[in-house]
Amino acid sequence: MNWNAHGAKILDMIRNSKPLVHHITNLVVMNDTANVTLHLGALPVMAHAVEEMEEMTSIASALVINIGTLSKHWIEAMFKAGKTANDKGIPIILDPVGAGATSYRTETCHRLLEELSVSVIRGNLGEVSILAGLGGEVKGVESVSAGGDAVDVAKALAAKQNCTVSITGKEDVISDGTRTVLVDNGHEWLTTLTGTGCSSTTAVAAFSAVERIPVTAAACALMCYGLAAEIAAPQAKGPASFKVAFYDALYNLNAEQIEKGGRVREVS
Amino acid sequence: MNWNAHGAKILDMIRNSKPLVHHITNLVVMNDTANVTLHLGALPVMAHAVEEMEEMTSIASALVINIGTLSKHWIEAMFKAGKTANDKGIPIILDPVGAGATSYRTETCHRLLEELSVSVIRGNLGEVSILAGLGGEVKGVESVSAGGDAVDVAKALAAKQNCTVSITGKEDVISDGTRTVLVDNGHEWLTTLTGTGCSSTTAVAAFSAVERIPVTAAACALMCYGLAAEIAAPQAKGPASFKVAFYDALYNLNAEQIEKGGRVREVS
Amino acid sequence: MNWNAHGAKILDMIRNSKPLVHHITNLVVMNDTANVTLHLGALPVMAHAVEEMEEMTSIASALVINIGTLSKHWIEAMFKAGKTANDKGIPIILDPVGAGATSYRTETCHRLLEELSVSVIRGNLGEVSILAGLGGEVKGVESVSAGGDAVDVAKALAAKQNCTVSITGKEDVISDGTRTVLVDNGHEWLTTLTGTGCSSTTAVAAFSAVERIPVTAAACALMCYGLAAEIAAPQAKGPASFKVAFYDALYNLNAEQIEKGGRVREVS
Repeated sequence: MNWNAHGAKILDMIRNSKPLVHHITNLVVMNDTANVTLHLGALPVMAHAVEEMEEMTSIASALVINIGTLSKHWIEAMFKAGKTANDKGIPIILDPVGAGATSYRTETCHRLLEELSVSVIRGNLGEVSILAGLGGEVKGVESVSAGGDAVDVAKALAAKQNCTVSITGKEDVISDGTRTVLVDNGHEWLTTLTGTGCSSTTAVAAFSAVERIPVTAAACALMCYGLAAEIAAPQAKGPASFKVAFYDALYNLNAEQIEKGGRVREVS
Repeated sequence: MNWNAHGAKILDMIRNSKPLVHHITNLVVMNDTANVTLHLGALPVMAHAVEEMEEMTSIASALVINIGTLSKHWIEAMFKAGKTANDKGIPIILDPVGAGATSYRTETCHRLLEELSVSVIRGNLGEVSILAGLGGEVKGVESVSAGGDAVDVAKALAAKQNCTVSITGKEDVISDGTRTVLVDNGHEWLTTLTGTGCSSTTAVAAFSAVERIPVTAAACALMCYGLAAEIAAPQAKGPASFKVAFYDALYNLNAEQIEKGGRVREVS
Repeated sequence: MNWNAHGAKILDMIRNSKPLVHHITNLVVMNDTANVTLHLGALPVMAHAVEEMEEMTSIASALVINIGTLSKHWIEAMFKAGKTANDKGIPIILDPVGAGATSYRTETCHRLLEELSVSVIRGNLGEVSILAGLGGEVKGVESVSAGGDAVDVAKALAAKQNCTVSITGKEDVISDGTRTVLVDNGHEWLTTLTGTGCSSTTAVAAFSAVERIPVTAAACALMCYGLAAEIAAPQAKGPASFKVAFYDALYNLNAEQIEKGGRVREVS
C-alpha cells in the first residue's frame, strides 16, 4: 500500500466533504481539538448534554469520546452518544486519558469498551497497557511504565476488544490485532505541550470520518499529524512558537509534503 | 452618521471605563473570549453557578449568553442571570451557537427569547434563519443553508423578537427591523479558527456595555473586530499565526486605523 | 539567602523529578495552566470528579484549588481533594479568584480555609484583603481597592490563617506573617492576558511540590515566572505575541538568566 499517496487522498476527502466530528472531550483541550479539526478541513462540534446526544451524534461522521476530565453526567452522555453512533454506523474513537491513574477512569473505559463497539482506541503506552490487562503505571495523564513494548501491548488490547488500537510515542503503533503498522513521523516538541495526544485522537477521528478501514485511517492520520510537527519544528523557539507553527503546518499540509515526508510501514 | 469616528469613540470609552462583561459561555471559547474582552479594554468574568448569578450579573455592564455547550444547570444560570440583567437594565447579548443542529439548542433559544428581553442576537445565517422560523440547516455549529438572504433573515428575527439581530458572514448584517446596517470588514482567516463567531459576540457585548443603541453598538463592534482581522491578515502563514496577529491587532487598534479602514453603511 | 541560586536549584529539581500537580481549576485557564506546568518541567493533571479525588490527589505532589468558575459539585471535589492532600502532607495552593465579587466565592474561600490547611494563598490585592477581613472591592476577577497596602494585607491574612500568602501585582509580596519577601520581577504585558494570575498560582504549586518552605517556594516561583515575562517582553507586539514569547521563555529559563535577573529581597 502506498501510505503517503493514500494519506494525501484522505486529507483531500476531508477538505472536500467537511465531515462533522462530534467530540465529548475534556475541558483542557476543547479549544485545541476544535482548531485541529478545522485545520484538517473537518467541522468540530463539542456537545455533552444528554438531552441532545442522539440528535447531535446522528448528524456527525465520527464521534470522539475522551475521558480526560470525567464526571457523572458526561459519562452518561458518552454512553448515549456512543449507542447512537453504533446504531448509525458512525465510528467511535476513544481516548482513555489517564486510564490507570484512578480506578474511576479505568473502570469507565472498561464499561465503555464493554457496552460500545469502538473503532479506534488512541492512547499512550501506559494507558493502553492497563486497559489490556498487562499492568503499567500512569502518573496523572503521563505514561510511566507498561507491561510490554508498544507493538505487543497494542496487539493485546486490539485482540481483547476486537478493535484497532493506536499507541502514540516516539514511534506510533497501530494494530487491529492482525495488521500492525508503524508511523515514524512526529517530533519531540509535541511532548512539551498539553493536549497533543488528545489532538492526535481528533486527527484519527477526522480521518475515520472518510476512511472506513480503521488501521488505514489511524495510520494516515498519525502520519499527517506527525509530519506537520516535523515541518513546524525548525521554527520553534519553545513550545508556544512550536504550537503556532504546528497548527499552521497542519492547515497547510499538502500532497507533496506527505509524498516526501510520510514514513509508514506495515510490519505484520 | 460617521461610523468610523463613532466606533473609535466607543472603543475609547471601553478602554477608559473598563466595563465588566459577564459571560455564561461555552467551554470551547472561554479563554479566547476572555482575552478578546481584555484586548478591547473591558474586563471579563466567566461565571455560571446559579448561586452567584444575581450578584455577578448585577455588577456587570453587559451579559453574554452563549449556548455553545449547553447543559441543564447552565441553562438555569442563563435564566437567572438574564432576569437580573433585565431588572437592572443591563444589555443581554445572545449567541445561539448551533441553534437548529439539535432541538435542545433551538428550544432553549426560543425559551430564552420568550422569557428575557435580549438586546442583540449575534449568530450565523443558518442559526438566525432557524430562530426566525424561516428554516435552514446547521451542521454542528456551521451554517449550511437558510430561508433567505442575510438582510431578510436578520430583519425577520428582529421584527419577531423586537430586538437587534446581527448575522456575521462575508458581509455582516445588523438590523433592528427598521434600521439595517452592513459591515464590510473582516477576513477569510476568521473562518479557519474556532470561536471567532463567539468572540465577535463578545465584542458586541463590550461595545454594548458603553453604547446603548444596539444597532450602533453591534455595527461598531463588528467593524472594529473585522478591521483587526484585516490588519492581521498579511502576517498570517496559517490560522495560528493569524490568531496571534489578530489578537495583537485588536489590542493595538487605534482611531487612525478605524478612520481609514472602517466600512459600514446603512442601507435602510 | 541567595534567592537566585536557590530559585534555579528548585527549577532544576522540578525538571528532574517531574512532580505531578493536581489542579481543580477554572474552565478559562485549564489549557494555559496545564501548559505552564509542563513548561516548568512538572506534570499537570486536571480532574474534578468526586469519585476520583482521593486517588488522584494521593499520587500528586501539590494540589491547586482555584475557584475561578465555581459550582456545587466542584466545591465538593475541592474539599475531598483538600482533605486527602492534608492527610498525605501534600501542599495545597489556593487561588481565590473573584473572592469579594460574590458572597458565593467569598464564603467558599472562608469554608475552604476553615476546613483545610492551606500552604499558600496566591491572589490579587483585593481578593486577599477581603479574605483578611480588611474590606476592598473586586470587579469580576479584577482588584479595584483594598483595606491596606500589599505588605500589610498579606501579613494580616497570613496571621489570620496561619499560612503563607502571596499577593501578585507590580511588586509581588509573599509573607507567612513573620517573614516577608518582595519580588520585583514581572512585566505589564501580564496584565493584558487572562489567566496570568492563575498561571502564577500554578508556578507556586510546581515549586511547592519540591520545596517545602512555602515562603521560599512562592518567592522563587514568582521570581522565575516574572523573569520569564521580562525576557519575553521585547518580542511582544501585543498580548498574543507576548504570550507565545512568555511561554517559550518559561520553558527555556536557565540558571544563568535567573542568576542575572532575579530580584528578590526579604524585608522582614
